Amino acid sequence: MRLAAFRAVGDAVGARRVGLVIGVGADSRVHPFPRGTDMVGLLAADPDVRDAAADAAAAGDGHPLAEVVLLPPVYPVAMRDFLTFEAHVAGASMAIQGAATVPPEWYAAPSFLFMAPHAVHGPYDDVAMPPDTERLDFELELAAVICADVRNATPERAAAAIGGYFVMNDWSARDVQGREMKLGLGPSKGKDFATTIGPWVVTPDELSRYRDGDGLLDLAMTVSVNGEQVGADRSGSMSWSFEEMVSYASRGSWVKAGEVLASGTCGTGALVETWGRTGALYPPPLRVGDVVEMAIEGLGVIRNQVVAGTEVAPPIPVARRRLPQEV
Amino acid sequence: MRLAAFRAVGDAVGARRVGLVIGVGADSRVHPFPRGTDMVGLLAADPDVRDAAADAAAAGDGHPLAEVVLLPPVYPVAMRDFLTFEAHVAGASMAIQGAATVPPEWYAAPSFLFMAPHAVHGPYDDVAMPPDTERLDFELELAAVICADVRNATPERAAAAIGGYFVMNDWSARDVQGREMKLGLGPSKGKDFATTIGPWVVTPDELSRYRDGDGLLDLAMTVSVNGEQVGADRSGSMSWSFEEMVSYASRGSWVKAGEVLASGTCGTGALVETWGRTGALYPPPLRVGDVVEMAIEGLGVIRNQVVAGTEVAPPIPVARRRLPQEV
Repeated sequence: MRLAAFRAVGDAVGARRVGLVIGVGADSRVHPFPRGTDMVGLLAADPDVRDAAADAAAAGDGHPLAEVVLLPPVYPVAMRDFLTFEAHVAGASMAIQGAATVPPEWYAAPSFLFMAPHAVHGPYDDVAMPPDTERLDFELELAAVICADVRNATPERAAAAIGGYFVMNDWSARDVQGREMKLGLGPSKGKDFATTIGPWVVTPDELSRYRDGDGLLDLAMTVSVNGEQVGADRSGSMSWSFEEMVSYASRGSWVKAGEVLASGTCGTGALVETWGRTGALYPPPLRVGDVVEMAIEGLGVIRNQVVAGTEVAPPIPVARRRLPQEV
Repeated sequence: MRLAAFRAVGDAVGARRVGLVIGVGADSRVHPFPRGTDMVGLLAADPDVRDAAADAAAAGDGHPLAEVVLLPPVYPVAMRDFLTFEAHVAGASMAIQGAATVPPEWYAAPSFLFMAPHAVHGPYDDVAMPPDTERLDFELELAAVICADVRNATPERAAAAIGGYFVMNDWSARDVQGREMKLGLGPSKGKDFATTIGPWVVTPDELSRYRDGDGLLDLAMTVSVNGEQVGADRSGSMSWSFEEMVSYASRGSWVKAGEVLASGTCGTGALVETWGRTGALYPPPLRVGDVVEMAIEGLGVIRNQVVAGTEVAPPIPVARRRLPQEV
C-alpha cells in the first residue's frame, strides 16, 4: 500500500489529507481517506482495518497526481540518522582524513545521531539555499517511519513497529557541518534547513519480494543532478537491517510512533565522497537552479530544485571570552 | 512565576496536571490550573491572561509539595544541547585529547547538537543504570523551553519566545559516547536513556534581577554526589545568552514551541572534566545507589538516585561486512 500526505489544488495552504496512491507514473491517482485520518495511526492499524479503509478510499474518484501537492508523509517526532553503508563511511573518511579507513567502532553497533526534526520538505518542494554555505550537498538515504512505541525490542518485535519506507534526501552544508564536527558534535546546524522525505509511505508488505537472503531490503538507489546520474548503490549494501537499527535504538530507550529512522548515506550517495576520493570540488557543490532527483526501487522518486534563499538571517553571535588567553 | 507539571497522590499513573508553585522549601504548595491546561500554552499566553489564571489557581487550597509527584515540566518536541561554557570545552578536550585547547571554530558561533527528546525524567525520578556502561556521568546544565515558533529571530525577538528556565542533568554514558564520537557523530546513544529536567519552569520575569551587565542570566550552579559538592560554576560564565542561542538556531530554520534548548555542561559540571585533568577515574563513575543533586539559584533543585537497571536489552547487532578486507 502506498500512502501519501497531500493537499489538493484549491485546498487551503495548511490543509493536509492522507490518501491512497493507485496507478503507475503519470496515471496515478490519490484517493483520499476521510478527513482527520492520521498517517501514523493508519500505519499502526490492524491490516484488515487498513485494507477496509483503503477499499473505501479506492471506491472514490480520487485526484490525478498532477492536481495535488504532495506533502512530507510525516512530521517526525524525532529523527535518527544511522551510518549503515560501509562504503560511505570509507568514502567520507577519505574526504575528512585523507584515508579510506573504517574505524573498528563502526562495526560493533549501528550508530546514529539525532537530527533536525522540523526541517522536513515535501517530495517536490523547492529547497532554499541555506545561509553560510558554499558547499551544499545531498545525501541519498532510505528511511522508515515508526508506527508503535517500542523499547528493548528484538528485531522481530521491531519489525511490527515499522510502518513503512520512503526516500530521503538529507541536504547538507558541508562547510557548516565541518566546523561543528571539529567540536566533537555531529552535523547539526549544517543539516538544519532541509530534509526531503517522500514521495509517500510504502508499507512493508509491498516490499517483501525485495528481501534478500538475510532479510534486508535490497532496492536499487540512484541520485542525479540536472538529469545526470552521479551516484548509485543498493540498500542491500547496508550492514544492518532496519529491524536491527530499531532494536539497537530501543535498548534502554523509547523509539516512538512518528519517529523517522534513516539509513545514512549510501555509497556514492553524496558529492562529498567524490570530493574526498579526487581531492577536487567536482562535481561542484550544488548551486541555485540545480535539480536533485533521487529514486529508490519500489518506493518512487523525489525531486527538488535549489532556489535562492530570500530570508534575512540575523548575524551570527560570536563568543564572549571567559578564560585567560594564552600569549 | 513557577509552573510545575505534576500528578497528585491518588491520581492515575498517566495523569498530568499543571500547577502554580507558591511558597518556600518544604512549605511550598502546588495549586492546580484547570484540567487540560497546557504548560507551553500557558507560557505563551498574554501575561495578563496568565496572571489571571494564576490568581484563580492560587485561590484554591493546592497540594503540599510532599503530596505530589513532580513530572518533567515539558515533553520536548526537540532538544538542542549547546556548548556555551568555555571552561567545559577546555576541560573536556583535556579528557579527550590530553590538552586544554579550545578550537577556534568554537568561538565563531554557539554550536549545538540535537539530542534524545524522549528520555526526559522528572526532577526526583530514579534513573536506571543504562546498558553497556561502566562510566556513568552527569552534566549540570541550565535549560530553557520555547513557547512560540520563531525563524530568523534576532536576540530581541528570541527573548519573547523563551517561556522559562529549569535545571537539567544530561546523564551521559562516557564509554558509549566515546565510541560514537570516534565515528564523527556527536554523543547520541550515550545519552539516550535519561535527561532530568525540573523541578519546574521559572518564567523569565522572575529572574530579571539576575541579569548581568551583558543581559546574561548569572545564576550560581552546583552539583553534589551523595551530599558532597563536586562541581560549581555560574551561568554568567556562558559565552552566549539564551537569546543569542535561540537566534542562531533559528537562522534559516524553525525553532518551535515545546523545544528545549540547553546551555551544555558548565565548568566542573561533569566528572569527565576531572578525569581529564587528573588522568584518574576519580571521583569514580556513578554507581547504583548514588544520589546526584543539582541546584541553580532562582530555579530550584533536582535530585535523582541511580538504581539498578531491570530491563533486558536485546543483543547489539554487529555489522555485516560489505567491503573487501585488507590483509
